[in-house]
Amino acid sequence: MRLPRILAPRVTASAHCDLPCGVYDPAQARIEAESVKMICEKYQANTDPEFRTRAVIIKEQRAELVKHHLWVLWTDYFKAPHFEKYPNLHTLFNEATKLAGAGGVKGSLDPATADKLLAKIDEIAKIFWETKKA
Amino acid sequence: MRLPRILAPRVTASAHCDLPCGVYDPAQARIEAESVKMICEKYQANTDPEFRTRAVIIKEQRAELVKHHLWVLWTDYFKAPHFEKYPNLHTLFNEATKLAGAGGVKGSLDPATADKLLAKIDEIAKIFWETKKA
Amino acid sequence: MRLPRILAPRVTASAHCDLPCGVYDPAQARIEAESVKMICEKYQANTDPEFRTRAVIIKEQRAELVKHHLWVLWTDYFKAPHFEKYPNLHTLFNEATKLAGAGGVKGSLDPATADKLLAKIDEIAKIFWETKKA
Amino acid sequence: MRLPRILAPRVTASAHCDLPCGVYDPAQARIEAESVKMICEKYQANTDPEFRTRAVIIKEQRAELVKHHLWVLWTDYFKAPHFEKYPNLHTLFNEATKLAGAGGVKGSLDPATADKLLAKIDEIAKIFWETKKA
Amino acid sequence: MRLPRILAPRVTASAHCDLPCGVYDPAQARIEAESVKMICEKYQANTDPEFRTRAVIIKEQRAELVKHHLWVLWTDYFKAPHFEKYPNLHTLFNEATKLAGAGGVKGSLDPATADKLLAKIDEIAKIFWETKKA
Amino acid sequence: MRLPRILAPRVTASAHCDLPCGVYDPAQARIEAESVKMICEKYQANTDPEFRTRAVIIKEQRAELVKHHLWVLWTDYFKAPHFEKYPNLHTLFNEATKLAGAGGVKGSLDPATADKLLAKIDEIAKIFWETKKA
Repeated sequence: MRLPRILAPRVTASAHCDLPCGVYDPAQARIEAESVKMICEKYQANTDPEFRTRAVIIKEQRAELVKHHLWVLWTDYFKAPHFEKYPNLHTLFNEATKLAGAGGVKGSLDPATADKLLAKIDEIAKIFWETKKA
Repeated sequence: MRLPRILAPRVTASAHCDLPCGVYDPAQARIEAESVKMICEKYQANTDPEFRTRAVIIKEQRAELVKHHLWVLWTDYFKAPHFEKYPNLHTLFNEATKLAGAGGVKGSLDPATADKLLAKIDEIAKIFWETKKA
Repeated sequence: MRLPRILAPRVTASAHCDLPCGVYDPAQARIEAESVKMICEKYQANTDPEFRTRAVIIKEQRAELVKHHLWVLWTDYFKAPHFEKYPNLHTLFNEATKLAGAGGVKGSLDPATADKLLAKIDEIAKIFWETKKA
Repeated sequence: MRLPRILAPRVTASAHCDLPCGVYDPAQARIEAESVKMICEKYQANTDPEFRTRAVIIKEQRAELVKHHLWVLWTDYFKAPHFEKYPNLHTLFNEATKLAGAGGVKGSLDPATADKLLAKIDEIAKIFWETKKA
Repeated sequence: MRLPRILAPRVTASAHCDLPCGVYDPAQARIEAESVKMICEKYQANTDPEFRTRAVIIKEQRAELVKHHLWVLWTDYFKAPHFEKYPNLHTLFNEATKLAGAGGVKGSLDPATADKLLAKIDEIAKIFWETKKA
Repeated sequence: MRLPRILAPRVTASAHCDLPCGVYDPAQARIEAESVKMICEKYQANTDPEFRTRAVIIKEQRAELVKHHLWVLWTDYFKAPHFEKYPNLHTLFNEATKLAGAGGVKGSLDPATADKLLAKIDEIAKIFWETKKA
């Protein structure tokens, strides 16, 4: 079972609004992407046409939220020095947001596509947390 | 420093959309509430009127997101047996969402009000994770 | 035919935004729920697949609005003394918002489910107007 | 006191979504406009700068909702024969939505401007209910 | 190929927000309507049920944006003297927004319906640019 | 005066929704950025506090739309070969979206900041139209 966040040590805050408040957290994108994956799995397990229509509607919204949360990190959290230190970072974000779009989870109901998106988000999250430690 | 989520053991997913996908996480409400607190602190430290107007605008949006994420947990995640086991749960959510509204962080720029909201969210999160373990 | 609101005596205003303006009215939730019911009826009467997809899309949005309007009443209009006087009020709102979600009208195209939601909203409205009279 | 809607005779439904569900009700625009008026009154009675900033933010949103609900009635409910029978109807809607915008309640904090908007909505509602009776 | 806007002479700005900023441009409605037409064409060329569901979902959103951009022009840009000079203008907007709704592109997947909407937008744009020249 | 779009030759459509419809146009970002600039100019010319609060509110929304339209181009229109051919393209978009955020037009009311954003959008639009010609 995942360690509940409430029990985890929490000293520094991470930020995300455009004041900017300075609170960022890749968890926001990841939670929506986990939701997308679950929707794909439930879709595959249920052939009721109304349920499937609902699954496609909601997946579209969740995938859009993944895109949005990633865009915010890319534009608002990461600065020029980060992009110098991690030359692959632009491509990583571009590929991740494409995976959240029509060529990825929006256009697919295969949980494996969602897994690719989750893996890409984890690559970004790894870099994110390295920059927070530095 | 907070333990990066990516390094934490993650076995079961938690859910939140209304398919329902089954992925819920009080972290969504908490991240927005942390943002609200940071906005209050930045507001107190900056007397520029334009900055302050922006702070109030953005705080309004973030507080609304806190409300929304809490409402979703209350309606969609928690079921009748949970409310029987935790008789205080309705009141807890009602107070938490009120603290995210006009009588709480929407109507105040004091970081202490945001702290009260965060504490209430943590009480809810504690119960949430207990029900996930059960 | 329903009595047009414009002809009805109107002295006190009822309120709903989070200033708070103090203008609340369960009619907002009810109108959206009536819309949900009509969508279900039109869906049952029309087998065109494109029409049915649109019906599911729009029902999803209207049901979400029902939830939102009810949440606002529960958090922003009703206060602690109301919950003491009406011990069933929390449960009533929790059941009503659940009926507006996946286990209710979001997950069903049966007008009878919409009727259950409408009946629950009317129970809430009855209490609402009692508290306005008091 | 206003007659609670729940006690009023209700036989035919009125509709508003773009399926279309066929449920329309000028009450939606009126409730938001009442909210705008209350916000103006609270603004005039409270000189706290943070409160006033919030009032302007929320009034902007409520006025936009007035516009939206009126636009929906004008485009989706009223048909060519209505516009023939009521030659002033286009102008009425154009003036009402302008009163909900920058030249009206968005650009003013005077409750009297909100009263003009409410009066215009009532003129529209009167015609609306006449067409429902016919 | 369309003349890229960037190479076109640009002296006066056109406006659209409700400050009002004074920047209006029928291009906003037209771009969304072009999108609607493309969606209809792609729908006709692709029988995959998931793709078709997505097409209907997205067309619904784009059509709503067409409506919104047209409503803004009608309420915020055009003034009483314009409506006197162009007596057909109200009807033109009413028909255009109806064509963007259930009786038009929302309720149809025929590119020909989208063409009718585009033609109506072009009629409006022609008048718009005449009033800018005057 | 700008050449009205309606008179310009228009053969191929450009696309932007995530079906994807294939209709993209940097004009969407530019129109919002022009609006931001106008808001800054009107703000500088009007010292009324209520007007200024509204200006900040609306500028925040328009700037967010600039960001969104640019993000869509970056993720959905441009493909890997474009990024190879224009090695500066990632940086251009990152800088443009930052200029639409807190470090740019969101955090400033100086029309000169909006001019910087407009210039950056024009650089992107120039590349966009080159890729359409190719």
